[in-house]
Amino acid sequence: MPEVGIGKHLLGMEGLSGEQIHGILDLADGFFAISRRTIKKVPSLRGRTVLNAFFESSTRTRMSFELAAKRLSADATNFSASGSAMGKGETLLDTAQTLAAMQLDAIVVRHNMSGAPHYLAQKLEVPIINAGDGQHEHPTQALLDLMTMRRRFGKLEGLEVAIVGDIAHSRVARSNLIALKAVGARARVFAPTTLLPLGLAQAYGCEVCTSVEQAIEGVHVAMTLRLQQERMVEGLLPSLREYAKEFSLSPERLVKTRPEAIVMHPGPVNRGVELSPEVVDGPRSVILDQVENGVAVRMAVLYLLLGGEPE
Amino acid sequence: MPEVGIGKHLLGMEGLSGEQIHGILDLADGFFAISRRTIKKVPSLRGRTVLNAFFESSTRTRMSFELAAKRLSADATNFSASGSAMGKGETLLDTAQTLAAMQLDAIVVRHNMSGAPHYLAQKLEVPIINAGDGQHEHPTQALLDLMTMRRRFGKLEGLEVAIVGDIAHSRVARSNLIALKAVGARARVFAPTTLLPLGLAQAYGCEVCTSVEQAIEGVHVAMTLRLQQERMVEGLLPSLREYAKEFSLSPERLVKTRPEAIVMHPGPVNRGVELSPEVVDGPRSVILDQVENGVAVRMAVLYLLLGGEPE
Amino acid sequence: MPEVGIGKHLLGMEGLSGEQIHGILDLADGFFAISRRTIKKVPSLRGRTVLNAFFESSTRTRMSFELAAKRLSADATNFSASGSAMGKGETLLDTAQTLAAMQLDAIVVRHNMSGAPHYLAQKLEVPIINAGDGQHEHPTQALLDLMTMRRRFGKLEGLEVAIVGDIAHSRVARSNLIALKAVGARARVFAPTTLLPLGLAQAYGCEVCTSVEQAIEGVHVAMTLRLQQERMVEGLLPSLREYAKEFSLSPERLVKTRPEAIVMHPGPVNRGVELSPEVVDGPRSVILDQVENGVAVRMAVLYLLLGGEPE
Repeated sequence: MPEVGIGKHLLGMEGLSGEQIHGILDLADGFFAISRRTIKKVPSLRGRTVLNAFFESSTRTRMSFELAAKRLSADATNFSASGSAMGKGETLLDTAQTLAAMQLDAIVVRHNMSGAPHYLAQKLEVPIINAGDGQHEHPTQALLDLMTMRRRFGKLEGLEVAIVGDIAHSRVARSNLIALKAVGARARVFAPTTLLPLGLAQAYGCEVCTSVEQAIEGVHVAMTLRLQQERMVEGLLPSLREYAKEFSLSPERLVKTRPEAIVMHPGPVNRGVELSPEVVDGPRSVILDQVENGVAVRMAVLYLLLGGEPE
Repeated sequence: MPEVGIGKHLLGMEGLSGEQIHGILDLADGFFAISRRTIKKVPSLRGRTVLNAFFESSTRTRMSFELAAKRLSADATNFSASGSAMGKGETLLDTAQTLAAMQLDAIVVRHNMSGAPHYLAQKLEVPIINAGDGQHEHPTQALLDLMTMRRRFGKLEGLEVAIVGDIAHSRVARSNLIALKAVGARARVFAPTTLLPLGLAQAYGCEVCTSVEQAIEGVHVAMTLRLQQERMVEGLLPSLREYAKEFSLSPERLVKTRPEAIVMHPGPVNRGVELSPEVVDGPRSVILDQVENGVAVRMAVLYLLLGGEPE
Repeated sequence: MPEVGIGKHLLGMEGLSGEQIHGILDLADGFFAISRRTIKKVPSLRGRTVLNAFFESSTRTRMSFELAAKRLSADATNFSASGSAMGKGETLLDTAQTLAAMQLDAIVVRHNMSGAPHYLAQKLEVPIINAGDGQHEHPTQALLDLMTMRRRFGKLEGLEVAIVGDIAHSRVARSNLIALKAVGARARVFAPTTLLPLGLAQAYGCEVCTSVEQAIEGVHVAMTLRLQQERMVEGLLPSLREYAKEFSLSPERLVKTRPEAIVMHPGPVNRGVELSPEVVDGPRSVILDQVENGVAVRMAVLYLLLGGEPE
């Protein structure tokens, strides 16, 4: 298998080169087939301990990492914040140091505080994998998104990718914008004005659009972001219905894209809000491919950081 | 080992023939001994992934499936609804499709909605095992009950079985009534009139009794059902005390049965309500055999649906 | 590896001889290195089933037992009280009997009721390991504490050990006092008068001190106990600030100890209450060694009770 150094931790897409990203995806392509076998297991990381430390609830990401670890024969252990010493006032660092003292080979961290994984990476010896930190980054999501694009189009360079939705609060958007730039794809974004950060175009070299039609015209990829209901409560959006009217992707809107364009969503989808039900279940949707590729990408990341043995 | 086809899913006892049921129990008898060994593990399902998706809380059934999977060397992963995307408004189908996209070999589903496993079986490619759906079916409970009877009496055909309690709301009763009919046993039921469905005798070929004495007279098996406290709140029953007076099995009442009769309960028992404490802990009680047999039956079901390799 | 009989269960330090304690620690020293290897796994307990039954929330202890079991190749299964049949009114014994009927090789029990593990040990055939019962005992904590002392000082006999804090409510203190006496170490205690049990000196052969300075003067080990915030609510203590003033260990206070003295805490620490932050992170602190040794001690206990095979 090809191999690529990505450093000791995976904290974000920030700092990864296009070559490193392609290296991870090459490895993930190799791991993809394992989950399709009857015996979905290789001995690469036998006897290693991977801790999933989720300080914010998650099902799909936690399960994806757990399956990735187990399919490499590692022992996966789950920690969730509820019922833990965190509730007894222990600091994040004390909790993590304690867990790490049990001799872990990697800690997969999800935390609602931006920068939490970076902070732990500075303080601990154990490799840290960011599984989503606040509104900052979610690098394995960007990697699985890029893997899905690359498997469909055979390349990343030159792809036109629209990202539609709540850019301001989205770690998925941020990680994708950084990664798309690194691999030479061209990103456009379209967001409610209240949910669009200033300086986005300069920061990420993307195009900021003023209509969904402009954003998706001629794209290879239309990626939508999950809308959190709390944006309405916060007064940042009037109603789901009005959001859907302007931002939801329907089959009618999608005729603007390339004929071979795909539709992506990090899930879970609010059907009828970000995407019409016909699009979710339609031929352009690669949402379930994203999920499947997620396991392969996480196997690749664990393998690279833990120094697994080739099969 | 003998083998029997039971189809792609196990959604209920409905549709299984007596021959198929005996085939599952033959296999379960073979697996029974594994859990009694020092090394409680065979490699039959090595590298397979079994998901326990419990949308309704459970300890014993979830643990029984988890141990069954692990003792066949499969990887067992648990999903519970709390803290999941279901809480974020995702539909059951979207959740299940997402999980299945991670390449699972079986999904064990418990759901408070009758028919939920059947719905998933129609939509997904992965084998679905019903671990209890609403007030509908709980097939592995019926199988472990039949296994317990067959191991005690050496046969199922011709056994007289009384089922006492809240028949109307009981998936355990429904699965047992279907299964007992299929294997040629004779069922009698006794329930509070408010908790007795109309047309039961016709639907399941069972005898509806008007007293507990009539129900258990001369039976091989006296099976009681757990009474949910909420039946009192709903006004369907006056009080636990009055229920116990008419329905609870005591040593005095059990003299009506055959001398070799056994007492069953799916657990957890409300001591003093469905059964007197002396009966729970007494020589007729096979409640813990039911639990032990449950692991063996679930190993058999997983083995059959996942196409395991013989030891 | 050396071996020592410790009986069928591990319910407390009560009843263990110094020789038995040293035997467990010898074995734990041998297991210590396994967690430092790349492949952190030996096949000793392959195919055994260890249940972690935590009726009281815990992260570190549950994870420590889980990793200990997995590193010996046992299957570890977790049970937590929330969402279980306990919530449906089932008794502790019925729950435990049901779980044991699934053929477990050990049950690790944490319960807020003192004596719960002893009660289960009387009733069940399966080995019971006490992971903390009410305010009674927490034997694996005492064992890991003694392991930490022995690894640092090469012996236990003759060590001077101060235990400072809420002695009255502490199962950690109780197990340590019993164990320290058994191995011939000399314990001193210092506690708020409201949190000091009567008759302590007679019961455990320890010295009761009247100031922190007296307690730690010339000691090898200064062990502090976690203070529960509820002691303030209960009116047993005026405030955290006043507690800290009299009981907190600071670098200034620690000059009273031997130069080579170590500082211990069972975790999680309330920084600034039991220990000043400088001490927690300072050179005398062995808090993370305690955590690491905890996995090794629990491996030793599981190995001894389950009759593992040598590597």
